[in-house]
Amino acid sequence: MITDREKAAFEAGIKLGAIYHQFVGTPIARETAASVEAAIEQAVSLQPYVTKIRVRLNRDLMVSNRFGYSELAGKMFDVEITTTVGETVCRARLRLEDDYPMMEVVEIS
Amino acid sequence: MITDREKAAFEAGIKLGAIYHQFVGTPIARETAASVEAAIEQAVSLQPYVTKIRVRLNRDLMVSNRFGYSELAGKMFDVEITTTVGETVCRARLRLEDDYPMMEVVEIS
Amino acid sequence: MITDREKAAFEAGIKLGAIYHQFVGTPIARETAASVEAAIEQAVSLQPYVTKIRVRLNRDLMVSNRFGYSELAGKMFDVEITTTVGETVCRARLRLEDDYPMMEVVEIS
Amino acid sequence: MITDREKAAFEAGIKLGAIYHQFVGTPIARETAASVEAAIEQAVSLQPYVTKIRVRLNRDLMVSNRFGYSELAGKMFDVEITTTVGETVCRARLRLEDDYPMMEVVEIS
Repeated sequence: MITDREKAAFEAGIKLGAIYHQFVGTPIARETAASVEAAIEQAVSLQPYVTKIRVRLNRDLMVSNRFGYSELAGKMFDVEITTTVGETVCRARLRLEDDYPMMEVVEIS
Repeated sequence: MITDREKAAFEAGIKLGAIYHQFVGTPIARETAASVEAAIEQAVSLQPYVTKIRVRLNRDLMVSNRFGYSELAGKMFDVEITTTVGETVCRARLRLEDDYPMMEVVEIS
Repeated sequence: MITDREKAAFEAGIKLGAIYHQFVGTPIARETAASVEAAIEQAVSLQPYVTKIRVRLNRDLMVSNRFGYSELAGKMFDVEITTTVGETVCRARLRLEDDYPMMEVVEIS
Repeated sequence: MITDREKAAFEAGIKLGAIYHQFVGTPIARETAASVEAAIEQAVSLQPYVTKIRVRLNRDLMVSNRFGYSELAGKMFDVEITTTVGETVCRARLRLEDDYPMMEVVEIS
């Protein structure tokens, strides 16, 4: 038996893994970060069980290379996602912790 | 409080989402499928909490385009992954079900 | 000796290959396609030698799966890019031709 | 009129852009690097006009994170590709130059 709490956690994990590996490597700069945030939020909103998604990309880490742009790196992500399975709500996040882009379940209720 | 079962399900979700979105789009053919399977298995084995991973890509769906190759599509995946958190073991999979590449938790024990 | 025409063609190729393999697999639907188009255009605009970029994604191919969304596929792309090296301008495109997402140089001048 | 030299350069660019954006973000470590190199080489070999491809990933840059692995970064690539259009052969590469993963045409003949 898999509970709704476990399913909601599984679904949140899927989406965080997907975001990371779909978008890492995208050319980015401070001026274009908002459009990438919007595209990611809209893409993830379409996926099953997602009831809320907020994506912020850390502009401070967008250091320009010699051609004047940067590249979306895992360490730039600050994502909070909510998945809902039945009555159960799972909140999870992806954010930099001790220099590692950590994904964690924050709360299930 | 997040249980080890919930954590193990979350971690399995992360890896399935990652596999899908990292590798979809890779040029592939029946003769090269084994090398992509091996690379995915080895990559995923490195990730935290993964204790077993098996990746099979459906050769029947690798239909050649006019240049003689195909492209890794979500529908080709048949993946089974085991994550272990403490004493808890979660087995999850990604495989085609009714024409949709479905990710599910199979068992947590 | 590599001419500016050859360099401009090379640079255009880089960007088309990058667009395709960065974004294929992104969850998408007709309602969110504009945000993905905008994000791709802004990302590519940052890259060296790009002087113009237009990305259109074919909504007709965005057929809903059982969860009500689709996935960005190579066949959906209609991209036109201009690269400029010195005085030389290269126009290239990516678009569906006979069921294959073809990339071609249209004109160098 | 587009020459075979220009076409060969364009095709080489496509493949380098594709390699970079398809595989950046893949979990990697020194022990698994060979399998990723093999998978990339085999994938690219399938693509049109490619007559030779060599991919080396710089193990020295594969510094372990707290979970004991690293992630494929653009700076790790050392790629040499040959494309052939008609009688014309283009050799291009992707490698780190002054801390930037530079793509360049080396020779067309």
